[in-house]
Order: sequence, then C-alpha cells, then structure tokens
Amino acid sequence: MNYKMIRYIIGWLIVFESVFMLFPALVALVCGENSFFSFLISIGLGLLGGGLLVVKKPKRTTMYAREGFVTVSVSWLVLSVFGAIPFLLTGSIPSVIDALFESVSGFTTTGATILSDVECLEKSVLLWRSFTHWIGGMGVLVFIMAVIPLSGGSNIHLMRAESTGPSVSKLVPKMKQTALLLYGMYITLTVIEMVLLILWKMPVFDAVNTAFSTAGTGGFGIKNDSITSYSPGIQNIVTIFMILFGVNFSVYYMIICKKFWDVFKSTELKAYLGILFAAILAITFNIKDMYGEFFVALRHAAFQVASIMSSTGFSTADYNVWHGFSKTVLVTVMMIGACAGSTGGGIKVFRITVLLKTLKKELETSVHSRSVKKIKIDGRILNHEVVRAVNVFMVAYIVLFFCSMLIISMENYDFTTNFTAIAAMINNTGPGLEAVGPTQNFGKFNILTKCVCILDMLAGRLELFPVLILFTPSTWKK
Amino acid sequence: MNYKMIRYIIGWLIVFESVFMLFPALVALVCGENSFFSFLISIGLGLLGGGLLVVKKPKRTTMYAREGFVTVSVSWLVLSVFGAIPFLLTGSIPSVIDALFESVSGFTTTGATILSDVECLEKSVLLWRSFTHWIGGMGVLVFIMAVIPLSGGSNIHLMRAESTGPSVSKLVPKMKQTALLLYGMYITLTVIEMVLLILWKMPVFDAVNTAFSTAGTGGFGIKNDSITSYSPGIQNIVTIFMILFGVNFSVYYMIICKKFWDVFKSTELKAYLGILFAAILAITFNIKDMYGEFFVALRHAAFQVASIMSSTGFSTADYNVWHGFSKTVLVTVMMIGACAGSTGGGIKVFRITVLLKTLKKELETSVHSRSVKKIKIDGRILNHEVVRAVNVFMVAYIVLFFCSMLIISMENYDFTTNFTAIAAMINNTGPGLEAVGPTQNFGKFNILTKCVCILDMLAGRLELFPVLILFTPSTWKK
Repeated sequence: MNYKMIRYIIGWLIVFESVFMLFPALVALVCGENSFFSFLISIGLGLLGGGLLVVKKPKRTTMYAREGFVTVSVSWLVLSVFGAIPFLLTGSIPSVIDALFESVSGFTTTGATILSDVECLEKSVLLWRSFTHWIGGMGVLVFIMAVIPLSGGSNIHLMRAESTGPSVSKLVPKMKQTALLLYGMYITLTVIEMVLLILWKMPVFDAVNTAFSTAGTGGFGIKNDSITSYSPGIQNIVTIFMILFGVNFSVYYMIICKKFWDVFKSTELKAYLGILFAAILAITFNIKDMYGEFFVALRHAAFQVASIMSSTGFSTADYNVWHGFSKTVLVTVMMIGACAGSTGGGIKVFRITVLLKTLKKELETSVHSRSVKKIKIDGRILNHEVVRAVNVFMVAYIVLFFCSMLIISMENYDFTTNFTAIAAMINNTGPGLEAVGPTQNFGKFNILTKCVCILDMLAGRLELFPVLILFTPSTWKK
Repeated sequence: MNYKMIRYIIGWLIVFESVFMLFPALVALVCGENSFFSFLISIGLGLLGGGLLVVKKPKRTTMYAREGFVTVSVSWLVLSVFGAIPFLLTGSIPSVIDALFESVSGFTTTGATILSDVECLEKSVLLWRSFTHWIGGMGVLVFIMAVIPLSGGSNIHLMRAESTGPSVSKLVPKMKQTALLLYGMYITLTVIEMVLLILWKMPVFDAVNTAFSTAGTGGFGIKNDSITSYSPGIQNIVTIFMILFGVNFSVYYMIICKKFWDVFKSTELKAYLGILFAAILAITFNIKDMYGEFFVALRHAAFQVASIMSSTGFSTADYNVWHGFSKTVLVTVMMIGACAGSTGGGIKVFRITVLLKTLKKELETSVHSRSVKKIKIDGRILNHEVVRAVNVFMVAYIVLFFCSMLIISMENYDFTTNFTAIAAMINNTGPGLEAVGPTQNFGKFNILTKCVCILDMLAGRLELFPVLILFTPSTWKK
C-alpha cells in the first residue's frame, strides 16, 4: 500500500476543501454573520493540516487499483469529517454525529437532513450545505485531478472509483483533460440554471443554492418546504435541470463535438428518458383526482419523478400522501436512479439496461440452446467484464441493503420507513416514505441508525466497491 | 414444438390428479358429506378427459429443453385449473378466480388463502387443500416419471424445470429411479411426522392434514388460527419437520447411503442451519419482553422462523405485532428461503451462498487483480454456468418482483402490504405483513391482483424460467 501517496492526496484534498470554504466565509463576512469566524478557524485548520501533509511529495507516485479504492474511500471520509467542522463551530448542529451525517449527506449528494428547521440557519451555513452537494456531485478527486498534476497511472484508478457507473468514460485520452472537460460542462450547466432561476424571479441567494443543489443532484433546500413555495415556473426549471444533471456527461461532450448521431444512438439515454416519461405519465393519471387539474398533477408528477429518479430529493408536494401506486413508482425509479457518468445516484439506468438485456438473452438461449447471442449496447458488443461487474454490483447492493435494514429495524420503525430510509441512503436520494417522507427528517434516529446511514450514503456514492473493500481483510495484507 | 408429447403428458397428469381425488372422495363418503358427488363428478371428468388425451402414445417422444419448460408450465396450469373444480362444485369457493387462487396456492405450496373461515369447510375439502400441498411439494411430473415410462431424453428436462434449485441433483443415474427414491423418502418423512403428531395426541384427521401441509411446505391449516391452538409439543414437532422438509433431499439420500462425511461437508446445509438458528436466536431475544418467558419466546421464534424460511407459512402467533426487527428478520429469511432440492420456496440458500461467494471473490480479485480465484461449494469448484444461472435468476426475480408490485399497488394498499404480499407469493410462503399478515387472507383483493398473485406463485414454484419462457416470443417460433 502506497501510504505516502494516499497521505499526499488527502493533504491536497483538505487544502482544496479549505479553499472552497472561502466562499461561505465571504458570504458570512458580507452578511455580517457570526459564523465568519467559525469558517475562518476551519480554513486555518485545513490549510495548516493539509499543508503539512503535502509539503513532501512522495517519490513513488504509482498506485494500483487497490490503492485507488482505498484512497477514494478514505478521502471521502476525511472530506466529510472536515466538512462537518463548520456545522459544529457555528453551533448550527451541536451534535458530532449529526454534523457528520449532514456533511456526508451533503458531499454524497443525498440531501437527507437531521434538521427540522433550516430557515433559522445563517446564510453562510446554508450556502456551505448546498456547496457540499456541488463539490460531491462531480467528485472532489476529479477536481483535484483537473487542477494539480498527480501521477500518470493513479488517475484512472481514482476516477474509476469516484465517478458513477460501471466503467469510466474517458472523454479524451488524458485523464487530466477529461477532468477539466467534465468540470467545464458542470460549471456551465450550473451557471445556466442559476441565470434562468434569477430570470424567473428567484432571489439571487436562493438561485445560487438551488443551482448547487440541483447540479449535484443533492436536495438540501434552504426552505423548510423545499421547493413547494416557489412559483410553478421556477419549479419547472428545476425539473428540467434535475433531469439534465441525471444524464451521462459524455452525452454533453458528444453534443459539443456535434456527434448528434451518437447521442441519438445512446441506449442509456433513451432508456433513461423512456422510464422517466413513463413514470411521469403514470403518476399524473394516478394523482389527477387529488389535484383536480391535469397540468397541476403533471407539474407535481414531473417534478417528483425527476427529483427522485435523478436522486436529488427536492419536493413540491408531500408525495407520502399520494396513492399507493404513485409511491411504488417513485420507489422503483429511486432504485433505478440516473445515468452512469452523471452526478445522480441509484443503481443507474446503464446497469438496469445491461441486466434486462442479459435476462432477455438468457431466456432466448435457454429456448434455443445452440444459439450464441451477444449483448449490444449503443450498437457495440458489451464486454463480458462489464456484465460481471454489474452482476456483482447487484449482489453487493442487495447484501448491503438487507444488512442495513436489519440493523436499523432495531429502532422499531415500520417496515416502509426502514426500507425506504435505506433505499434513500444507498441511492443517495434523501427522502423516503412514512417517517422519512418529504416532510420529515433523519434527526429522530439513534446513533447506530445514523452510523449505518452514513456508511450507506458513502457506499452508495462510491458505488459500493471502494467502501466494501475497506472491510475486506485481503486489502490490508502485504 | 412436440405438441403431441405435451398433450400426452398432460393427459397422464389429469388422470393422476383424478386418481388423487379418490382420497378426499373416500373421506367424503365415510363422513357422509355432500361433497362426495362433487369429487365423483371431478374424477369422472378427469378420467374421461385425461383418458382421451393418453389413448394415442406419440411416436416421437424426444423433447428438448424448450419443450420441457413449456410442458412443465402448462402442466402446472392444467393441474391448478382441474384442481379448482372440486372447490367450485362443492360450493366451498363459489368464485372462479378465488377457486383458482386457492388451487394454485395449494399446488405451489404457497398456502395463502382467500377464505376467512376454513373451519366451516367439509372435511373432504380440507383434505383436498392439504393434499394439493403434498402433491405440489415434490412435483407432480416427478411423480408421473416415477410411475410410468415416458421417454429417455425428456425426463431430465422435466425434472430440471420442476425441481427446486439451479441444478437438478440426480441421486442415481436413471431419472425414473431418482424420482422413485425422492418419493420414497418424501412418503417416509410424511408418515413419520403423522405418527409423531398422533402420538402427541393430535386428532388423526388433523395430523394427516398437518403432515401433508408441512411436507409440501405449504401452510394451509384446518383451523382459522393455523397451529396456534395446538399444544406446545405438537408445535415443536411441526417446527422440526418444517426445518427437515426445507433440507435438500439429496442429504437424506447421503444419510441412507451412510455418506455422513458428505452430509457434514454440505455447504448449503451448514448455511441453511446457520441462518435458521441465528434468526431464531435474534428473534427470541427481540420478542422476549412480549412473552415474559425465554422458552415461550424461543418456541414461537423457532416455529415462525422455520415456518417462514421453509416457506410453509403456518403460525402460532400473530408476528405482525412483533417488533420491527423481528419482522425484518422474517422478511429476510422469507427471501432467502429453503435449500435447493427441497420442497421449500424462496431464492434458496444455495443461490445465496453462490452469490455471497461470488461477491467475496470479486472483492478480493479487485484488490489483487492478478489473482485468479475459483468459487468452491462442497469442496468442489463451482461450474461457471451455475454462477451465471444464479445471476440471471436474481435479475428475473427482481424484475418480476417490482413489476408485480407496481401492478398490485394500484389497489392502494400500503407499501408493506404490497411488498410482503409479492414476497409471500414469489417465495411461495403464504402470509406476509400488515393486510396480508398471518391473521389476514387474500380474499379482499381485486381480480387483477389475484391474477398477478397466481402468476407469481406459479413462477416462484417453477423458479421463474419455465413461466417467463411462455412470454418470450422466440419460444413460439419454429
């Protein structure tokens, strides 16, 4: 294990996180908030601690897959722990475990909160919450990669562990360039949303926060009722951007390169939009009686499906009181999740597509045993390794899901709460149903449940393997 | 498609089912029940109809995998439809869909009922219900195979489709001998249970029914409170036999052959008992406060875990009012299910073992990418085809599960009811939680939900593929 290189990367991580904190610190200064000093102390601590770790660049910079996984997992833990400090110092969240929960929920873009009232928080703290979503959405190591030179071989392993989906899509041959491109597109889309929201008369502070939250498909709101009290126009803009941030970013690169035919051929994109629109229609007709008008029902259905499927977790309505069918549709799209290579969570449409194509192939093979069929995605034959990785992901997903449910069910909440709480954690969605519904929060749970939630959020964001590998004994063998 | 051979096998199936009906008919005659004539009419119809179908033996008796699957699926549908006739003719269940539900629930050994009061039924009808469990448990085509000569090549395909688990365990080289052995052991165990129950002062009629229900891991009771009102001694006997019928029958064959070392080495048996005892202990401690005494809690916990994990579905307590943790444990063991090659349902411990071993292997491989590891079960390297089959089974399971849940959720029951209803159907368990809990029944659902349940029970019993293949277009291509 190349501990020196891990130490070096984590050092940079803390330095960058401190730099990111300048942004809320500035807001605190401008608004004359007390939290300014808390942010200043955090930044000081970070620059000192991180700085000490990066002083000595390791001689051997090569890293193997195992080190990539470990680095990413440990980085995300450090990121979250350090990110929780402002919550504690400002007194916004006095409990250590709660502050950590909030921070993990932020960086993993889950958006579940332990706070029952967010409107009493200072603006700088609200901004830090939303900003953690934005940082975590595209990945902080991807950001570091784009900015400082690490090493040749290690980048691909870090990127693979941090980006979503079973295979990393290199936009251009060099990883650094890929990282730069990803962040370029990410910033552009975020700014466009911000501008549109302001044009639709959302206050600037609200627009900045909402855009950060949407971009990372996070879901932390700055109002207690999430997006409910904003105008229908604003809600629709958020709907569109939640859908856009759930799309594989390589699709946007294809558009930039004017490869429109490739966009049209994208199996995952078609499946994503197909499921999305089918779910919206199904829910619209199901809840029409509750809202009277078709278009009101459509707006709420579209918002909620986009929010849950992209794993954002915003809400414009208490969908916990919708009919059973709508709730089941929402839980289903929560599991399916967004596209691979997006900022969204869930199993990912790509994996679902691979699984369904495998099933179809196997059914046909078992009928005509001599026929040899290959699975095609985007017109290309799918590598067997990807199929295997998807299958193993599913096993890990199910095992983690049921183990987590068993532990948190000791708290004696109902089955629906337990099930959807874990689903909302592993899929990085945020809200679930019943006691974790859109009008509820996670503050009520005990420490054990919160620890399980923290683990599940991290495991979900890093797509299980990097986190599970920490618990595999052979990782730590020489 | 060898339609003539399918017709011939189905003919024999109906003939045998008519012969089986002689048993309840005899009881009706002895007890002077009106249902005697209903059974007589059913038998007459069956012998006539079935007889006509078997008059002409097809020249070409060879069958391929595809025909094996189709034969088994269609056979089970015919078996259920014909088995529902006595329910209709006796007037016990006046609705056609309800009678079919009850019959499918019987043969698939699910044990979910649409009846709110079973104690008002005539004895012969009660016996027919329990007997359908017994027939369905080991498989009716396996029975036919043991009795009449079909053809050389087709037997293995039929057996593969009808017996539980990803691979058929041939006890001896000849399929006919294997079938005879299986039924020999099955009858022996059933009789032993019957005798023990009678020795422990259960009325003979009750003992016969309970033994049939336990042997098939079905769960139809002859009392409205299932097994609750019987003595603790009787409950413990049923517990032990539910566990025994959830064991792979090849283990009993090893015992007969005195291969005790093979029994000891059986990975699946050890996993099955390990999960079973862990679940019993966990629940015992969780519900101890509800029952005061440790041993009372242990008895109920042991009974319920054995009942749910073996997919029987009997109950001695309303576990729907137990603590959340106990309910989650029960849902988990419901999904895991019994051993492959037993009469029990669920995903099967064998498949779970394969999945966990795959996960462990992949975690280790991803850490040390150059190491090549093989998965071993029972000390032997596992065939890659089995791993693939298990993976595809899981995909089919999840897809069917969510599609079914989506459809039945249109009825607007709560999430827990929908989830556990489908789990109780696909795993052939019977009862679930909330509105399908142990004190409830399935009579309240609408026709659409009942149809989905019927499909899921059949798909679960035949382990998905034979049923799903009926809906695959290429099955029906020349």
